[in-house]
Amino acid sequence: MRAAVMRRQAFAIEDRPMPVPGPGEVLLKTRLCGICGSDLHQFRHAEEIDQLARSLGAPGQDLSKGMVLGHEYVGEVVAFGPGCTETLKMGDRVVSVPFLLREGAPVPIGANVEVDGAYAEHFLGTEALLLKVPDGVPDEAAALVEPLGIAVHAVAKSMLGAADLPCVVLGCGPIGLAIIAVLKMRGVARIVASDFSQRRRELAETMGAGRAVHPAEQSPFAALEAAGPALVFDCTGVRGVLSQTINAAPHGSQIVVAGIPQGEDSFSPMIAIAKELNLQFVLYYTPEEFAEALGAVAEGKLDWRPLVTGRVGLEGIAEAFAALGDPEGHAKIVIDPWSDARL
Amino acid sequence: MRAAVMRRQAFAIEDRPMPVPGPGEVLLKTRLCGICGSDLHQFRHAEEIDQLARSLGAPGQDLSKGMVLGHEYVGEVVAFGPGCTETLKMGDRVVSVPFLLREGAPVPIGANVEVDGAYAEHFLGTEALLLKVPDGVPDEAAALVEPLGIAVHAVAKSMLGAADLPCVVLGCGPIGLAIIAVLKMRGVARIVASDFSQRRRELAETMGAGRAVHPAEQSPFAALEAAGPALVFDCTGVRGVLSQTINAAPHGSQIVVAGIPQGEDSFSPMIAIAKELNLQFVLYYTPEEFAEALGAVAEGKLDWRPLVTGRVGLEGIAEAFAALGDPEGHAKIVIDPWSDARL
Repeated sequence: MRAAVMRRQAFAIEDRPMPVPGPGEVLLKTRLCGICGSDLHQFRHAEEIDQLARSLGAPGQDLSKGMVLGHEYVGEVVAFGPGCTETLKMGDRVVSVPFLLREGAPVPIGANVEVDGAYAEHFLGTEALLLKVPDGVPDEAAALVEPLGIAVHAVAKSMLGAADLPCVVLGCGPIGLAIIAVLKMRGVARIVASDFSQRRRELAETMGAGRAVHPAEQSPFAALEAAGPALVFDCTGVRGVLSQTINAAPHGSQIVVAGIPQGEDSFSPMIAIAKELNLQFVLYYTPEEFAEALGAVAEGKLDWRPLVTGRVGLEGIAEAFAALGDPEGHAKIVIDPWSDARL
Repeated sequence: MRAAVMRRQAFAIEDRPMPVPGPGEVLLKTRLCGICGSDLHQFRHAEEIDQLARSLGAPGQDLSKGMVLGHEYVGEVVAFGPGCTETLKMGDRVVSVPFLLREGAPVPIGANVEVDGAYAEHFLGTEALLLKVPDGVPDEAAALVEPLGIAVHAVAKSMLGAADLPCVVLGCGPIGLAIIAVLKMRGVARIVASDFSQRRRELAETMGAGRAVHPAEQSPFAALEAAGPALVFDCTGVRGVLSQTINAAPHGSQIVVAGIPQGEDSFSPMIAIAKELNLQFVLYYTPEEFAEALGAVAEGKLDWRPLVTGRVGLEGIAEAFAALGDPEGHAKIVIDPWSDARL
């Protein structure tokens, strides 16, 4: 089968052996797979990420094997491995949290050289984790369930349940936009977004932000026009934004760090102490939050359509990665490995 | 009246005019005043603190005027200013959150050059904030209500209410020890403390820690002997400990930063994200939390006695500040401005 293999900051379309589902695993045919910000991050920083993992005591990986990315997938059941319950039927469309369960432990899909992701014609899933996509839900929506799950989780880990706070979303990439959509779904009345890109600010307003500001022109905290604590989502993934936000956020605010800045960041603890700030770092979701994202999409509670701005085949991935470097261009680009679409 | 005036990292005993209570204010005779870690901090870093305040847009202060520290006080009512309700009686012993309310705004007592604190024979309080110390509560206990209030607040701002987590207390100065006492009062079964000083580790065990480790010999997280998230109180006030703690804390932990490290600190956000850590920075208490600390002391719920290790008069303050630099010596030293005691 054909797969887009990432190696040394380049993609090669290679013929790989068809994956063979192990016990409790299912072979899936890729219908669509979104390009995630963390994929861009792996593309740029694979070696640094590997080194950091080694420094934390994890075994490193042999990056020369090449990595097949892709964890925002919707797939179609085409074969069952041994020991499956076969509750799902052949042809069913499915999504799942991007892990295989092997010997009881979760192994990430599409984020290492051992388990290929869905930048390929086929990939594997663990049957027990697969969720059937209801009929009528477009493939594009299903491919967005994973990033929407991240947003559902980020909001769930925040103080929002305990306090009705005005919200500031810094950075309007797909995760920032998804968080805006989830905040709107949760009934938050006051959402201010911030991004340097006009296109992204427009998307933020489309997704539910009451205002979207250019951070060099106006502080989003000033734009809140409210005294008191705010709930801030840092979705920029840019080093230094956290310390700026610690300096700028109102007393008693919470900063949820949902982007992934590379390297070290520095800040003044005394300022955070003087303002009694709370910082919540978030990464994944629970299976329940993932399922909630699917349900919200299926029931039309979340307007996902403005997020998807492009579609490419495997040969178009390199171009798509380059295009995603320009926030004026695209938000979410999805990959259809069976098409030869280019941007 | 006599007061210990801090100026350029030295104390001078000076004669100052007797303070005159303004509207709603009360003149208090100092019975005892504890030496706070933040007083040591002011002593060492007054200029830096002033510069940081200016950089945050606050008006600076003229440090050459000299500062009379002291906000962990128990005082005795000796005169009422105009407009007081006089619900309290002359001679009543009182404590309060260390603020004057002037024109509706709180003004800190004993932390700036404008409002003198209780390193003096007399000082002022706002009548509406004063709490009567019940008969039978020793002055030493009343002087500890303020730091115990900090501990009540730090624990209240933590996840403890939401989750029954094992606790790690880093740094066993008075605040760390007070937090251990409050955790014990809250019924936390598993408390591990960490300090380089043997004396402080012994005090930690006296206050309620099940174990106290030397951090160079054993990680307090290993000493927990429990998998899963922990609730960590960083009471060291030492730069760099936060990033070490971010690296060492288990997945899903909360780090409550209750010490005040000077300067910038740096850490790797990616590690905090990978572990979905929560950081809560804390400073003060609410009036309710302060009152709860007084009630806990009065009702014998909190064993405050091991905390107080020394008593000095005004002339002994400089020695006491020096002595507090050695953790093997003292925990909390209280000042009695009417005595000539020395260490």
